[in-house]
Amino acid sequence: PMAAQAAADDAHPVLMNAGKLSALGANAQAYPLFGEELARVRKSVDAAMKAGISVPVPKDAGGGASHEQHKRNYTALYGAGQLYRITGERRYADFARDMLLAYAKLYPTLGPHPAASNQAAGRLFWQSLNDSVWLVYAVQGYDAVRDALTPQERQTIDDNVFRKTAQFLSTGSPKVFDRIHNHATWANAGVGMTGYVLRDPDLVEKALKGLDKSGKSGFLRQLDLLFSPDGYYAEGPYYQRYALQPFVIFAAAIEANEPQRRIFAYRDGIVPKAIRTTIQLTYDGYFFPLNDAMPDKSLRTEELYQAVAIGYGVTHDPALLSIAQWQKRTVLTPQGLEVARDVAAGKARPFPFASMLLRDGPDGDKGGLAILRAGPGDKDQVLVAKNTAQGMGHGHFDKLNWLLYDNGQAIVTDYGAARFLNIEAKDGGRYLPENESWAKQTVAHNTLVVNETSHFGGDAKLAETLAPRQLHFSGEGPTRASIAEMDGAYPGVTFRRALVQLDIKGLKSPLMVDLLKVKGGKPARYDLPLHFAGHIIDTGFPLQSNVTTRPLLGKADGYQHLWVDATGKPGADNGVLTWIQDGRFYSYRIATPGVTMILGESGASDPRFNLRREPFVIQRLDGATDAAFVSLLEPHGRYDASAETTTGSESAVRGFTHARQGDLDVVTLTLRDGRRVMLVLADDTDPARSHSLQVGGKAQSWKGPVGRFDGEKAK
Amino acid sequence: PMAAQAAADDAHPVLMNAGKLSALGANAQAYPLFGEELARVRKSVDAAMKAGISVPVPKDAGGGASHEQHKRNYTALYGAGQLYRITGERRYADFARDMLLAYAKLYPTLGPHPAASNQAAGRLFWQSLNDSVWLVYAVQGYDAVRDALTPQERQTIDDNVFRKTAQFLSTGSPKVFDRIHNHATWANAGVGMTGYVLRDPDLVEKALKGLDKSGKSGFLRQLDLLFSPDGYYAEGPYYQRYALQPFVIFAAAIEANEPQRRIFAYRDGIVPKAIRTTIQLTYDGYFFPLNDAMPDKSLRTEELYQAVAIGYGVTHDPALLSIAQWQKRTVLTPQGLEVARDVAAGKARPFPFASMLLRDGPDGDKGGLAILRAGPGDKDQVLVAKNTAQGMGHGHFDKLNWLLYDNGQAIVTDYGAARFLNIEAKDGGRYLPENESWAKQTVAHNTLVVNETSHFGGDAKLAETLAPRQLHFSGEGPTRASIAEMDGAYPGVTFRRALVQLDIKGLKSPLMVDLLKVKGGKPARYDLPLHFAGHIIDTGFPLQSNVTTRPLLGKADGYQHLWVDATGKPGADNGVLTWIQDGRFYSYRIATPGVTMILGESGASDPRFNLRREPFVIQRLDGATDAAFVSLLEPHGRYDASAETTTGSESAVRGFTHARQGDLDVVTLTLRDGRRVMLVLADDTDPARSHSLQVGGKAQSWKGPVGRFDGEKAK
Ligand SMILES: [Zn+2]
Ligand SMILES: [Zn+2]
Repeated sequence: PMAAQAAADDAHPVLMNAGKLSALGANAQAYPLFGEELARVRKSVDAAMKAGISVPVPKDAGGGASHEQHKRNYTALYGAGQLYRITGERRYADFARDMLLAYAKLYPTLGPHPAASNQAAGRLFWQSLNDSVWLVYAVQGYDAVRDALTPQERQTIDDNVFRKTAQFLSTGSPKVFDRIHNHATWANAGVGMTGYVLRDPDLVEKALKGLDKSGKSGFLRQLDLLFSPDGYYAEGPYYQRYALQPFVIFAAAIEANEPQRRIFAYRDGIVPKAIRTTIQLTYDGYFFPLNDAMPDKSLRTEELYQAVAIGYGVTHDPALLSIAQWQKRTVLTPQGLEVARDVAAGKARPFPFASMLLRDGPDGDKGGLAILRAGPGDKDQVLVAKNTAQGMGHGHFDKLNWLLYDNGQAIVTDYGAARFLNIEAKDGGRYLPENESWAKQTVAHNTLVVNETSHFGGDAKLAETLAPRQLHFSGEGPTRASIAEMDGAYPGVTFRRALVQLDIKGLKSPLMVDLLKVKGGKPARYDLPLHFAGHIIDTGFPLQSNVTTRPLLGKADGYQHLWVDATGKPGADNGVLTWIQDGRFYSYRIATPGVTMILGESGASDPRFNLRREPFVIQRLDGATDAAFVSLLEPHGRYDASAETTTGSESAVRGFTHARQGDLDVVTLTLRDGRRVMLVLADDTDPARSHSLQVGGKAQSWKGPVGRFDGEKAK
Repeated sequence: PMAAQAAADDAHPVLMNAGKLSALGANAQAYPLFGEELARVRKSVDAAMKAGISVPVPKDAGGGASHEQHKRNYTALYGAGQLYRITGERRYADFARDMLLAYAKLYPTLGPHPAASNQAAGRLFWQSLNDSVWLVYAVQGYDAVRDALTPQERQTIDDNVFRKTAQFLSTGSPKVFDRIHNHATWANAGVGMTGYVLRDPDLVEKALKGLDKSGKSGFLRQLDLLFSPDGYYAEGPYYQRYALQPFVIFAAAIEANEPQRRIFAYRDGIVPKAIRTTIQLTYDGYFFPLNDAMPDKSLRTEELYQAVAIGYGVTHDPALLSIAQWQKRTVLTPQGLEVARDVAAGKARPFPFASMLLRDGPDGDKGGLAILRAGPGDKDQVLVAKNTAQGMGHGHFDKLNWLLYDNGQAIVTDYGAARFLNIEAKDGGRYLPENESWAKQTVAHNTLVVNETSHFGGDAKLAETLAPRQLHFSGEGPTRASIAEMDGAYPGVTFRRALVQLDIKGLKSPLMVDLLKVKGGKPARYDLPLHFAGHIIDTGFPLQSNVTTRPLLGKADGYQHLWVDATGKPGADNGVLTWIQDGRFYSYRIATPGVTMILGESGASDPRFNLRREPFVIQRLDGATDAAFVSLLEPHGRYDASAETTTGSESAVRGFTHARQGDLDVVTLTLRDGRRVMLVLADDTDPARSHSLQVGGKAQSWKGPVGRFDGEKAK
């Protein structure tokens, strides 16, 4: 069918339903989201037109002048195309044409980029990834104006810009193009869309099925392998957001040109599923900063504007409209128009944030991300258990790590990446050396470190071969739990972690119980760090403080980046540390016998001020072979600065103990009002297996690994 | 006239025009601000009624249970009174009555509070200040319900609660009552209002003119002495906010009962002036944290809800309505009703934030606070030069200190007070020892330190005797400047500081030039710290870093609280430090010859984690007798996290030099585009004095101490 179509009309737009947008310009104000976007893009493109066309010879690495100019150019091309379709104003088509004619002169003269480093070199940019992104945007802009050009102009631009770029990024870069990796997705998308625009089915076929068209690589294979069956992307939320864009944009182009492929139904609807999953990976709109990630990244990004619009175009799920409202943005496409129209019509419904286990790995058998939520709101408390596989080169060595969000804030934190994105003075915005020496290391996370070394000895290839096992997940009811186990992060060491979010009657926020058990085979030093956000208010145990000189905690594997402020050895009843964050108190209470607590601050050994400085506490056990770290984190109270009132600054918990009974771990919380809450975790995680226990003189029994028994107030 | 009135009717409300409020309950929703406040107070008072009346025997210090209960009681009494007047619901009057009858039983049995410390002991509270506050609120609540009580009940409460409290706080506490101090204002207000309610002119007279009625103390004298002619309160913005409440509330009561006193016109309208000045002491609604101050204090506080309503009642200035809109609150008084009505009617106008010099001292001759604003918006850039007098016991040793706000953020900062207000575990919420050892010390501020000691040797009494002289102030036009001089902060040392806010064509934000010149008489170590908010991006000069062990900078006067991260000696062209805060870059550039730069972090020597940890840079000159510190602070560029774009991360300034020509200091900025901006500061600050200088081969002349000459681009 494509060939026939091409013969009849080889210039009209194919990447979108341009008819829907035609001459909408005058009426855009009826849909404020669309109208504002139109004004925004018009302002930006008009400014670019006023600045004049600049297509410099490539020279600079990321952040440099020529780099930034080519980035601005693809944005302007894309915007000019949209504006031409919406407003019908010829000057936008002329601008896009003139810029592309300039590229048509430049492009054929280019060899590998002079600033290329160890990444695959591009032509316009220092890495070919940027060239792929350029192509994805530019070809959409071109598609939109192509029917306004003369056949001669089209020929020049087709041949000297787009066909050459597509050739360079496909047959000219086979290692990138045929990889199973997000960089390849961008290349596939750019090349495939170019195929549609140039009416070249061969390019489309290569984009979908790889250079050899076997299907062993290419876009469809990427959809098979880069997402888990639950729509989780292997590299984690930050890159999931980034990776999503070529998937959704190319999918929309495929749907527009070859609906018979039913691309949105492919693999049980993996594309719309991935969009929804991406949104679930946020708190208050910000992505969980797992693996290499910038913590300031939210749903307010170009990728998500596109994803929400395309997702809405496919599903018409009104929950996506509330995300668009939060974003306060949409895109200038027919789908963006639908979003803006339906938001204006009041059709938005709250997005249903939910507890969920997102399995990892193409077959869903490489661990997973366990998300426990206290409610459906985007600011309700969230516990994230990172029981995923390594996630390739951007993965951190943090098996069974966890995060907590509460009261609108990150409380138990992950450093994310050591990087100042796009800031030239910080190594050109690239990952900093401290990303390796600190951010990726295990001690920078909230999980077990054995003998002051990182998981897998910091070997990413080895790490790729092993994943945790999710043994149990229950996301509903008042006792929500994740249990997972990791074997082989250290030779001969197995550790298992139960993280439980407990609703307790009368307490505003759920409490978190954390039971981490390790079997080591031989005596070792076990450290369990907790990185938190807040200011320390109090400790229940005495501290030996390093007041005038703070030693480093160690020499390598991230330990060299930790200052030690103080150490202390809690007794049986006083193992508690309280901090305050945004007016809320957090008490971290431990029942780990024989533990030494190390309080300190990160950011040591950092002569270039590349690191943030943040507080941490470490539970340290020396010389044990097997051990159990038993911890409780309790949010409580409120300090109101404007009313100058404080309520609930004291913990509601009076006692916290752990005991072993047969094959059960029994964790008991005693509240200040005398009530007891008993949480029982069984070694056997079989959901069908029955367990029983004497509780307060009465035999209690239950099925599955998690039991809970709330006692009455003591008389 | 009071006696006659009292004979005719001795029970109707006198502290407010109750008729205006009567039975408004049903219609309150027409004015959302009022309706929301009504709902809020109703919820709070209903909860107090449900909890039942509790009037415990005084026992605890601040933050303890009995303390908090008596605080809750006065709030509930006040609220119940308002609700009775507005809704006419009898149960609110009954609740207030029953609680006051309980106080009538308790109060006569009380002696000095058992938890009294070195402050003047109260009866209900550990310090009598709290008793005064209790009285101010409670007597307003009582006034509102008094006509609903039987004569017998009135008699009991009059005699056993209010007359006794008023006696205790007046004749029973002469040292507090007759002081010229904010604690006395509260006592005066409480006693005076009690006088009106009990129809006892003697109490009113004592409140207004002191116990001996001579006028040497009392409320009017406080109005004379505690505010400067510009409405600036001696202790600084944080306490100005707090102090304002008894002034405005008692003034409103005086106006309601004795309009012939024309209290709002007293001293050229000092009360409404003080209200407006208080609002001017904010950025983005937050008070400048000078002296002992909590940095989280904003216009959203009870004091300012009252002040805005009372100020509006007097002036009907529509700018106050926009403050009420920002506050999203008002009060349940006739004035609050007016505010809510006029806000609902759309009468609000933007509050005109403006550059201004607020003279300090009762006669306006004790220095002043110089506020330079780049525009009238509450987020436009603000430079604050603290050239005020010491400000009593809560004053910091920071003569000629400065602050900068830009882009919605505090950039050049003041630590404020070392205190966790109302947080029991932090010394009961009181000022911490680190308030003396760190927060008050000179090195914790952005001003000159000589020989590592604080101004006046940290002696507050000595500090009280000397104030800076404001030599020049110009708040309008593109070159806004403050010049002030301090003599005697150190024996034999005079220092003068010019702070200039320069608008420069083509640059989005003004630049700050800081010229601090010291004459010492003998060689000394001069330090000029800058405490800033942000993450260091880059330095232009090489650093010697203390990577594995950070030394303390000194041993006393706050130096023991500073870790040294690195030091460096800039050359003539590379003395620049750049940081980023909230996506904006700040380059601090110096032209101080021979200086050593010390980069570090505060928060050392702090075993109890009482301090925040914040970055600083110090310019250090050793062995000079006279010296000039020449600095430039330039906000530039923007990092946009959601678009991942960076613009203007490079400084727009290429050169920055200082030269002395005759009696002129010539500071020259060379921009990257080649333009030159020359700022000339004359020793003679006489506004009428003419100066001249050769600029680019041409003689330029001007009047006054500040000259500026912008050159063209170099050809
Ligand atoms: Zn990480
Ligand atoms: Zn201060």
